[in-house]
Amino acid sequence: MPNDDARRGIGIGEFDNGVTLADVGELVLVERISLLCRSGPGSSALGADEVVGIGDDAAVLSISSGQIVAAADMAVAGRHFRTDWSEPEDIGAKVAAANLADIAAMGAQPTSLLISLGLPAETTLMWVERLMQGVIDEAARAQARVIGGDVVRADAIVISGMALGDGQGRPPVRRAGAQPGDVVAVAGILGWSAAGLAVLTRGFRSPRALVDAHRRPQPPYRAGIDAARHGAHAMIDISDGLLLDLSRVAHASGVIVNVDSALIAIAEPLAAAASAYNLDPLYWVLGGGEDHALVAFFAADQELPVDFTAIGTVSQLHDAGTGQLSVTVDGRPPQVESGFTHFS
Amino acid sequence: MPNDDARRGIGIGEFDNGVTLADVGELVLVERISLLCRSGPGSSALGADEVVGIGDDAAVLSISSGQIVAAADMAVAGRHFRTDWSEPEDIGAKVAAANLADIAAMGAQPTSLLISLGLPAETTLMWVERLMQGVIDEAARAQARVIGGDVVRADAIVISGMALGDGQGRPPVRRAGAQPGDVVAVAGILGWSAAGLAVLTRGFRSPRALVDAHRRPQPPYRAGIDAARHGAHAMIDISDGLLLDLSRVAHASGVIVNVDSALIAIAEPLAAAASAYNLDPLYWVLGGGEDHALVAFFAADQELPVDFTAIGTVSQLHDAGTGQLSVTVDGRPPQVESGFTHFS
Repeated sequence: MPNDDARRGIGIGEFDNGVTLADVGELVLVERISLLCRSGPGSSALGADEVVGIGDDAAVLSISSGQIVAAADMAVAGRHFRTDWSEPEDIGAKVAAANLADIAAMGAQPTSLLISLGLPAETTLMWVERLMQGVIDEAARAQARVIGGDVVRADAIVISGMALGDGQGRPPVRRAGAQPGDVVAVAGILGWSAAGLAVLTRGFRSPRALVDAHRRPQPPYRAGIDAARHGAHAMIDISDGLLLDLSRVAHASGVIVNVDSALIAIAEPLAAAASAYNLDPLYWVLGGGEDHALVAFFAADQELPVDFTAIGTVSQLHDAGTGQLSVTVDGRPPQVESGFTHFS
Repeated sequence: MPNDDARRGIGIGEFDNGVTLADVGELVLVERISLLCRSGPGSSALGADEVVGIGDDAAVLSISSGQIVAAADMAVAGRHFRTDWSEPEDIGAKVAAANLADIAAMGAQPTSLLISLGLPAETTLMWVERLMQGVIDEAARAQARVIGGDVVRADAIVISGMALGDGQGRPPVRRAGAQPGDVVAVAGILGWSAAGLAVLTRGFRSPRALVDAHRRPQPPYRAGIDAARHGAHAMIDISDGLLLDLSRVAHASGVIVNVDSALIAIAEPLAAAASAYNLDPLYWVLGGGEDHALVAFFAADQELPVDFTAIGTVSQLHDAGTGQLSVTVDGRPPQVESGFTHFS
């Protein structure tokens, strides 16, 4: 009944656009977010695995395999997203995707999200509801649900997500495990988000496909589970750039990874934008992050799962003492920046 | 071996106090935090339940009961803590406590923490390491470990935690479930943190016990599990104030809760500070949050677990239509503010 009371008391759409968090206060905000998370097409008060959902001190989940996968990802306004470049739904979906992709990159099924929000008091309730709708929708794409979180006042918008997943009895697919001879294969798109950012930075809004890819990445969650089922030796999601994330696998596995650029098909929108800006599209493909494609490593005689395309191989073990590069492109040192890091 | 490499490469204490995150960059910061989380007396690379720890896309935990409890809590500099009032270890411990107490309040055993940090580039590496040491130490008090998180650049310090726990096969103790005739009982201290804040706000640093309680609350984690074992009907941790948090249980359970002020012993430091500031110490006891005491509801014929003291009873069912108060003190409307809320 509390659900029904909440609907009657403060139904979605009851407040107009201008109502701020300072106007309604924390309790109404939390009630509205809870209501959003519990509603939506086809959903019941609790998801399949939820014993206790939003509204208690903690959520309780039942995970039959007994193997829980957990990851966290934080996004800050002005650094990870811009409220003038993206709709609130897109921002919410993007933060959710970054969190859920980490679960998929272990070969696990995402089940749950916790979202903590730091928000200025002048933020409108509508903006927060639209943000959370984006979170909820992206979670649904991954077959996961929002089960909890926190809201606090802050000077700048900060969104902190934590994703949980079910290992479903499969061994987790880690960064360590890639072996010489392995095929390196990608599911999802590469470089579109970086190209979309380049478009936005130059003040344009098209090609629309690139801008959309930047605003709202769509990680191939199912492909992560498929890779695990096909016995992937190692896997990572591309959040900071293909070369940088490949180097993380290479370091963890103690191998050298070679990307064969001839295997990378450059899609039409990428080619068009690169041509317009007089850039090599490989700059985005190799260095751009945030698409959350999955890169997995398979034995050479293993048929690749649907959605995966080979882009290279593990050429040999890495000899740590010699200063060898851990990632090469066409057998040579990469000619582009390797990816994004904070603070530097 | 990566652990050994990390120790050799960037051992704890190798950098001096003035080195900032801008100097060392994200990769060194993450490596240092990982190193801290893996080291410490008696710890191995992984905790008892960890299959995969820090350093992969996600952590993997084995929870034998298959029942996971999850909660989140975010803290922002200037609102939840002040870097001039608290040492970084205290701030870390306090954020960890707020997260872990929510797990204990469900009657579950805390197992794991994920900590995401938004940090200005001029933050020193030493400050972050001391913060994380506080997190790690408080997690150890609760028999939990730090298994993951994220670090990003931000204009103000923000600390976002997510705690996980093991339900251990017991039914979760929720906010709903309190029944007329139940005894309301508290484990832990009440009002000390609020009194300590009052002391600090007035520019003083003593009574030290109160200031310490504000800087570093010590939730009675074991008492939460004991309460569940003793069949508690409902439970909550006092994070926003006794009356406000009791009202949450009262609403969720549909009952009226009465606090008997004669049952509340006022400890000496509280009495002394209240006398000095010409205040009623009940103001802090009833309205002050952040001590993370646990309040549980037991059947009248149930012997209270060690650490719990009765402070009131559930007087009757709440009749939602009549505008009755859901919490009374000595049978009358409370005479103090009920607790802390954001945005208002």
